Amino acid sequence: MEKVKVLVNGERLKITLEKFADFGRTENNGVTRLALTEEDRAARDYFCSCCNELGMTIKIDDMGNIYGTLPGTEDVPPIVTGSHLDTVKKGGRFDGVYGVAAGLEVARTIVENGMKPQIPFTVAVFTNEEGARFEPSMMSSGVLSGKFEKKVMLMQKDTEGITFGEALSSIGYEGSEENRLKEATAFLELHIEQGPILEYEALMIGVVENVLGMVCYEIEISGESDHAGTTPMYMRKDALFAANNLIMEARKKLNQIDSDLVYTMGRMNVLPNVHTVIPNKVVFSFEARHKNPEVIKQVKEIIEGLTETENHEGCGITAVKLWERSTVPFAPELCDLFEESTKELGYSYKRMDSGAGHDAQFIASYIPTAMVFVPSINGKSHCEEELTLWEDCEKGANVLLETFLKKSQQFDKSQ
Amino acid sequence: MEKVKVLVNGERLKITLEKFADFGRTENNGVTRLALTEEDRAARDYFCSCCNELGMTIKIDDMGNIYGTLPGTEDVPPIVTGSHLDTVKKGGRFDGVYGVAAGLEVARTIVENGMKPQIPFTVAVFTNEEGARFEPSMMSSGVLSGKFEKKVMLMQKDTEGITFGEALSSIGYEGSEENRLKEATAFLELHIEQGPILEYEALMIGVVENVLGMVCYEIEISGESDHAGTTPMYMRKDALFAANNLIMEARKKLNQIDSDLVYTMGRMNVLPNVHTVIPNKVVFSFEARHKNPEVIKQVKEIIEGLTETENHEGCGITAVKLWERSTVPFAPELCDLFEESTKELGYSYKRMDSGAGHDAQFIASYIPTAMVFVPSINGKSHCEEELTLWEDCEKGANVLLETFLKKSQQFDKSQ
Repeated sequence: MEKVKVLVNGERLKITLEKFADFGRTENNGVTRLALTEEDRAARDYFCSCCNELGMTIKIDDMGNIYGTLPGTEDVPPIVTGSHLDTVKKGGRFDGVYGVAAGLEVARTIVENGMKPQIPFTVAVFTNEEGARFEPSMMSSGVLSGKFEKKVMLMQKDTEGITFGEALSSIGYEGSEENRLKEATAFLELHIEQGPILEYEALMIGVVENVLGMVCYEIEISGESDHAGTTPMYMRKDALFAANNLIMEARKKLNQIDSDLVYTMGRMNVLPNVHTVIPNKVVFSFEARHKNPEVIKQVKEIIEGLTETENHEGCGITAVKLWERSTVPFAPELCDLFEESTKELGYSYKRMDSGAGHDAQFIASYIPTAMVFVPSINGKSHCEEELTLWEDCEKGANVLLETFLKKSQQFDKSQ
Repeated sequence: MEKVKVLVNGERLKITLEKFADFGRTENNGVTRLALTEEDRAARDYFCSCCNELGMTIKIDDMGNIYGTLPGTEDVPPIVTGSHLDTVKKGGRFDGVYGVAAGLEVARTIVENGMKPQIPFTVAVFTNEEGARFEPSMMSSGVLSGKFEKKVMLMQKDTEGITFGEALSSIGYEGSEENRLKEATAFLELHIEQGPILEYEALMIGVVENVLGMVCYEIEISGESDHAGTTPMYMRKDALFAANNLIMEARKKLNQIDSDLVYTMGRMNVLPNVHTVIPNKVVFSFEARHKNPEVIKQVKEIIEGLTETENHEGCGITAVKLWERSTVPFAPELCDLFEESTKELGYSYKRMDSGAGHDAQFIASYIPTAMVFVPSINGKSHCEEELTLWEDCEKGANVLLETFLKKSQQFDKSQ
């Protein structure tokens, strides 16, 4: 007969999530909890008090990352879970905090069931994942993994001129470098999908295999500003019309590459932006994401080739690549373990990729890492409407618990 | 033998224009002289001192419009010329002030040649034509002609909360309502073209027959803001892509109507305007100008029909007409007189329309009115690069002088 699985307490997880949401809750039931603000400090304090109650040890590193650890029976590198507590302005109640609260819930379940896993279980809180107050996003996992320089990050300023370093010490969460997350058996991050796929396909769990590679351009079109009433059409150099032609041309080509490709022109500024003046400048962003580097290569050829196309309305075009990042594959054995746990729990699921960036993609560079997604209603995130059903929150936490236990068991077996 | 024509002094006109440009001259040789500022006051004072030197009487009305009048031998309604002294921010040295300076130059030529025309000659300065500090543009000619209500105009505020009325009295140019321009034999406005046509066709003078009719819309597209990395293309409602499709569709149809039609999407705002977020709103202006009301009617059908077209990317579309104005025809007998003068002076010219708005279009509603354009280099205006060659400034003034004398002579003959 199969052993009855230990499960998390969904109601307690819900209460914890709502408690976190109180720190910066907006009137429309969203959350504004920018990194290193009083709201962030209060949420961190609450996290630490939860860890203390469970007898977890707490360490804080020099970037303000917090690690609450439930000791294992063996002194071996921990299995780490967690995410971030900061939000964007008027963000939601789930992005980031869900991964932390689910980690706490797993720790509570372990403790209340008197389980004695051999491998320590750590719940991590990474500072400033959103980059909404201090750029860049994923700042602290970036420092941990050597992608960003700590010295430079400490000097990053918010719109009021306060540096990250000042804000960090002002909320009392400046720890020591020796506490940084170094060696670990695995990093397992739970997160809301922030996209519509799981809900659309009526699935409960997404086992994330990759964070998609991405390329980002700024495209600038230079025309001539002339009077809208006095300049005949054939004498114009209208930068908006040229932008329009370019976008059409780009879409026609991009739509032929691969149906999984996503691309967006999210930011566009028109100058001088006066209704009686022909636009002389249009600057817009272009970004595209896909797993396959060959597809990204084709995208780059299309975008860089736009300057050679026709229909420029007499305008000059530049397309400057701002940055590019490769697809980050997660550890296959951890994806398999997530899948196995999900199947055993009887949850519907799919293997999928993450189009969004997460701390896990940086941690993956030095610790075996994988992620699990739970559905986002209407795919909404970074907004007050952000919603994941409580039962889906619970299911994700069960997958995490089960996977932690399995991984721990592997250690037992290997002894 | 034909009588030798009296001509203006081009060098003196140039000196006058440069003197005016000193009031608010920018470092790039443009002018910032917003209505009712200290710079405007200084330019007005200089104008009045010039009128005084010529023995002209000065009247100021309740909108701050100034009228300098050289008496005729008969007490009959004057022939009025003039324009405005205010500029946009970082505007040029010619827009508006050219019509005033040319009027002064004509008065000087009359006086120094001891001419005694029977009809009085008035040079008018209209307050706040640009509307750059206080909306709307052509404010004072609008009040004179009953298009705008004085009471409302006096309460218009600049960005610092100062009302038009306060600013007017603070510079000491608040006169009385009885001084308003009422009856006049003619209103003749000289202005730079602010467009490229005369220069392109290598012509010296434009005899303006109409100010073009115009229609103005605001088009709003509502989609859905989703994460650029996590939302498959087929699940998006991208307002920018929809705007793009609409503009393409509109242009295809508009380009088939009439080659004289001009139309512009000058202002476009994309929201939330973040490179990682699919735009959920695009709002853009649309304006079109043409002489023929039938053409404007077709334009309206096309724009209002856009909401019925396809390719909306799942977005909602609204097209709201903000306002519309009819073509203003100028007095044919004055256009003929301008043309006759131009021909006799041996200047190349064409009859044309004004795509831009001018005080003359409001004055035309109660006084026989016409306009003359001189070429704008590269068609540039409302910018520091605005330029009209001194010799073209001189030619325009000669056309004004000759036309005034002709009109005055007509009066002689009619006695």
